[in-house]
Formats: sequence, C-alpha cells, structure tokens
Amino acid sequence: MRKHIFNAGPCKLSDATLENTSKAVLDLNGIGQSIMEVSHRSKDFQAVIDDAVDLFKELLKIPEGYSVLFLGGGASTQFAMIPYNFLNKKGVYLDTGTWSTKAIKEAQIWGDEKVEVIASSKDKNFMYIPKGYTVPADADYFHITTNNTIKGTEIREDYTSPVPFLADMSSDIMSRPVDVAKYDMIYGGCQKNLGPAGVTFVIIKDELLNKVVDRPIPTMLKYKTQVDKGSMFNTPPCINIFAVRETLKWVKSLGGVEEMDKRAQQKADLLYGAMDNSKMFKGTVAKEDRSRMNICFVMNDEYKEKETEFISFAAQKNIIGIKGHRSVGGFRASCYNAVTLEDVQALVDAMNEFEKLNA
Amino acid sequence: MRKHIFNAGPCKLSDATLENTSKAVLDLNGIGQSIMEVSHRSKDFQAVIDDAVDLFKELLKIPEGYSVLFLGGGASTQFAMIPYNFLNKKGVYLDTGTWSTKAIKEAQIWGDEKVEVIASSKDKNFMYIPKGYTVPADADYFHITTNNTIKGTEIREDYTSPVPFLADMSSDIMSRPVDVAKYDMIYGGCQKNLGPAGVTFVIIKDELLNKVVDRPIPTMLKYKTQVDKGSMFNTPPCINIFAVRETLKWVKSLGGVEEMDKRAQQKADLLYGAMDNSKMFKGTVAKEDRSRMNICFVMNDEYKEKETEFISFAAQKNIIGIKGHRSVGGFRASCYNAVTLEDVQALVDAMNEFEKLNA
Repeated sequence: MRKHIFNAGPCKLSDATLENTSKAVLDLNGIGQSIMEVSHRSKDFQAVIDDAVDLFKELLKIPEGYSVLFLGGGASTQFAMIPYNFLNKKGVYLDTGTWSTKAIKEAQIWGDEKVEVIASSKDKNFMYIPKGYTVPADADYFHITTNNTIKGTEIREDYTSPVPFLADMSSDIMSRPVDVAKYDMIYGGCQKNLGPAGVTFVIIKDELLNKVVDRPIPTMLKYKTQVDKGSMFNTPPCINIFAVRETLKWVKSLGGVEEMDKRAQQKADLLYGAMDNSKMFKGTVAKEDRSRMNICFVMNDEYKEKETEFISFAAQKNIIGIKGHRSVGGFRASCYNAVTLEDVQALVDAMNEFEKLNA
Repeated sequence: MRKHIFNAGPCKLSDATLENTSKAVLDLNGIGQSIMEVSHRSKDFQAVIDDAVDLFKELLKIPEGYSVLFLGGGASTQFAMIPYNFLNKKGVYLDTGTWSTKAIKEAQIWGDEKVEVIASSKDKNFMYIPKGYTVPADADYFHITTNNTIKGTEIREDYTSPVPFLADMSSDIMSRPVDVAKYDMIYGGCQKNLGPAGVTFVIIKDELLNKVVDRPIPTMLKYKTQVDKGSMFNTPPCINIFAVRETLKWVKSLGGVEEMDKRAQQKADLLYGAMDNSKMFKGTVAKEDRSRMNICFVMNDEYKEKETEFISFAAQKNIIGIKGHRSVGGFRASCYNAVTLEDVQALVDAMNEFEKLNA
C-alpha cells in the first residue's frame, strides 16, 4: 500500500514517474533494451535527454541564451564547481542555513578573504531570511539558496542582483514560475521535485561562460565542457534523467508550474493553518519566510515529550518521513510537487486527532 | 523481444537486475515507497548500500583495510580526483589508449612536468599493451587502465608496483578474480559489468589516505570525505546502487567471479576463434593482449566496403551494438558478464552466414 510520504528528499514522486520508469527498466519504447542498457550515444537515449531539456525550458519559460544540463555528483559538487569556475576576487553569499553554509565552505577553499557572507540568519538558527543588505557591485557573483530544506524557510521572490546571480533551487525548483532571466545560473539536485537522486540540473546562461576565471580546471568540473558536450562529456546517469523526463511530462500534463504553484499554496495553507490554530503544534520559522516545500513544526513546550509518540501515531496512519532534522527537532513535512492535498489532509487529520486525544 | 546486446556501456544487464529493479521502482520490499523515493538515511536504503559493499568485498575477496565506495560523477571524475588527492611530485601513467590518455590529461592540470608516461602504445594506435618498463620508486603512484574499451586490449595480470598502484577497471571489473592486495585503489564506472550508468565504484586501501597531498581539496573530491561518510556525504545515486546490488547478487548466484572468468573465456574463445578462422573478418589487436570484454575486429581489405552491410545484416538477426568506435572502425562486440554464450553464438553464426553469402 502506497504511503503518505513526506520525505525531505529523496521523496514522493508521481505515480506516472514510477510506472513509466519501471516499464522502461524492462524495455525502453519496445526496442528490446532497458533504459539501463541502451547506449547514451544512441538516438533512443538522445531523444530522452533532448526531451528532458526541452520540457525544462518550456515549463520554466527559460529565455534564449541558457543551457540546461543534467550532471552527476549532486548539488554538493556544484558548490565546488561554482568557485572553481567563477571565483576570482570576491564571491558573495547569503547564509540561510545548512546548505548555503556548505556552499560557502567550498568557496572558502580559495581563501576566506575571497568570500563575503553578505547577511546571515545564523543568530536565530536560520529561522528567517535576512533582508535589507546590499550586494557589492564589484563581486564576481552573488549566491543564494532559495529553499532551505532543513530549516524550512524559502525565498520565493526573484531578486535583482547587480552581479552574476546564482541560486541553488534544489528543493523548490518547478514549484512556481521563476523569472529565469534574473538569474545567471540555477542548479540543484533533482531528488525533490524532479526525480530520483543521482542527477543534478544546471540552468546556465551561456554568457556566464565568458566570466570563467583563467585557471586550470579539471575537465569534469568545467561548465564549458558540460555545455559544449550537452551533458555527455562522459556517460550521464541515464535512468535518472529518464525519470526526470517522466516527471516533467507529468508536471506539464497537470498544467505546468502555474498549477504546481497553486497546489503548493493550497497544501501549505492547509498545514500551516492547522498548526496556527493548534494549541499543541506550532511552526518554527518567521511567518513571512515559511517554506511551502519543507514545513517545519514542533510541539509547544508543555507537550514536548509527546513528539516521539506523535511520529508513531502518524506512522500507524501510513504517514511517514515527518521526523524533523536533528538541528531543528520536532517535525518536518516535505510537501513537494508529488505530495497530494490528500496526503497533507491525512497529516492534518492525524494532528487534530492526536491533539484531541492528548491536549 | 530481447536483443543480443553488444553495447560498449551502458550495456546488457542480467534479467534479474532488470526485473528486480523494475519492481523496486514501484515498491521497495513492500514498504510502500519506491527505491527512488526512500530516504538515503533510512534503514531500508542503508541495507541496500551495505549489502552492495559486502557483496563487492565477498566476490572480489577484498582483504581487510580497504573501503568500497559508490559515488557519482563517473570514472572521469576519478581521473581528476586521483591527482588532486595524490599527485605531489610525480604521477606515473601507462598509456594504453583513449581512457588512460584522458586520465593523464587530468593529472597534467597540475603541471606537465609532474606526469610521467612510463610507456605508451600510441605508436600502433594502442593495438597492444606496452611491456618491459620499470616504474620509478620515487613516484607518488602508478596508474593503469586494465581494459581498454575502445581499443580492445586488456591487462589481466595483477602487476606488482613499487609505489601506490591505481587501476581503472571500469570495463573488466568482476570478470575475473583480482588480487586486490596488489592494488591501492581500483575504480571504475559501473555501467559495464555492474549495473546502470550514474554510479562509480572505488575500492580504496585505507592506508592510501595517509598519502593525500597537503592542499585544499573540494569536499566532494576528497577520498577521505567519502570514506568517512560511507559514500553518503551527500545523497548518493540510490536507484543506481540498488541495481548494482542486484547485479552482484546475480553474479554470486551463478558462482561468483570464478564463473564469470570461465564464461568470459568461453565467449572470447568462440568469437576470436571465429575471426581467426575467417577469410573475411580479422581481429585488430595483438593476440596476447586481446580483451575478453571488448572484442574488436574489422573486415579484410578486400571486403572493407561490406562492413556497413554486415551491421544491417546482424541487426536483422536482433544483434545490436556491434559498430566499432570511430577511432578503430569495423566492429566491436562487447561481451560483458550479462552477455551470454548464446548471444555470442548468434553473432558468430551471423558472421559465418554473411561470409558464406559474400566471400
């Protein structure tokens, strides 16, 4: 029986993604070969990756002059590639928690003095998004993490940056329309709204390649390699890209990112509404910065010792993946695109029932 | 209908790998979640990766003191990681063709003068394995490519090296017993004998970590990170690792690498025997260095113009993936573990029939 899956990533995927990938593992389009067997240089696989790129561009209305890549190594490898390619004198970072902190650390490999943390919400365990800072016009780039999977905050505004603007959108890509023209690069692991772990997407403005620092860069870490070779300098993660393509087809069939946006809002309203009306549960982050993707909450102090019990209570109702990250505690319900309103309703019902029984 | 798949990689996989992966994409062990949805931090996935590591160690009889990793980024990323971690004064490479040449290039990023190509078969388009050289005792490491997927040569002897010994075994791992104790590191893309593209294996001697050069290394490129975190510093390619585990179970069920070794020899004897007895086809590499994994052959000059015709002829008999790499021409039949003797017999029958019709 299918569970109500609130995993933070890898996470729930659409039934269409699972069914079509399962079939393609046995036979891709009736060609007598599995998606795991077909050559990445074949027309059969080329059609899959081309389609994934085209759907990505179509769904996000990506303007001319951008390339879409599908790479291995995860967003964590991108943390290293960004400074390797683009950090010359000064990289500017917004520090909004765990993942942005990791991105900053990889830049500092090139020298602490080259990295400016323009603002940070570390003073309050990253429970809000810093605002009111000015990005220096002489920076090589400005980097943000739009959604903070662990802390549960999100930047849903497309900022205007005076310098090349790079965003890690691992956990909220494809959940809303994005004004891609405002960014020079958007990237992320695909294992949230796009597909399985093992593939990373990169949307990169071709002009940004003109700003690569003059230093020797390992071939696999050069964005130019990957753009020139259409993500196939080496063998790409074929089955992972296939599953992403299936997810993008599913997003399109439902009405695209506009519909995902609407659904994300409905799900978030339902769950945040429930905790705001509860005497037992409460949200952990500043209201104006609440993530729609990762909804973090705890029990009020007087019920604190009931938290573990609620996780078991929910599990009996087939609700899984709601344990909060250890750095926040409590609960985290990740409501990515494939999580349905019914899944969220099941969680809200469980919260209400538990509160009635225990409060 | 299932084809006779001779792809060079991605390539034919066992039916068990395909069937079990297809099922797990719908539901992993009846837990109500797909292998693409389950958290990499869950006990369900931990069991998968632990099992894959244990099977790897068991099948190759890996001694104590080695770690087995499953990473993203492909062997091409390893080409860069090796010098990043281990190249201080001098890295020594054996150049046996395309892939070793690429590995050499990544080391040269640290300075041409730091890379010594101890021997090369470039003089004869890499159609043999160089021998009779001496690895200098003051080198940081000695690197070889055991099987040359494109050129069709193979080193099946476990060399003795006076310095840390590193081998790219992307395309012949798990095809024979290996004396792992003679190596400090063995690595490769998994998309040949192990599973789908998108995951890379690394067998690394823990002692080698003491020889890491003192320089700032991006976290994802540090072997120490990956060893310390059991391949899970970041989200690993879960479904790919699952499929590798299924393949390793299948190898074990058939009798392990000893049985794979026997089968590889039978298949190679059959195909090389056919071409040696043919007036139309001939092998391209030195007999003593013939690969059992990638069997390259061409037509004799008088029949040269028939090569394209033979590919179509074979395709009509459901034989696919036999076109030779453009740098060699002719044909390449990759006979990895999952390719059966019956597949090879079908190819040999097609060759004989074509020769009878045309010679």
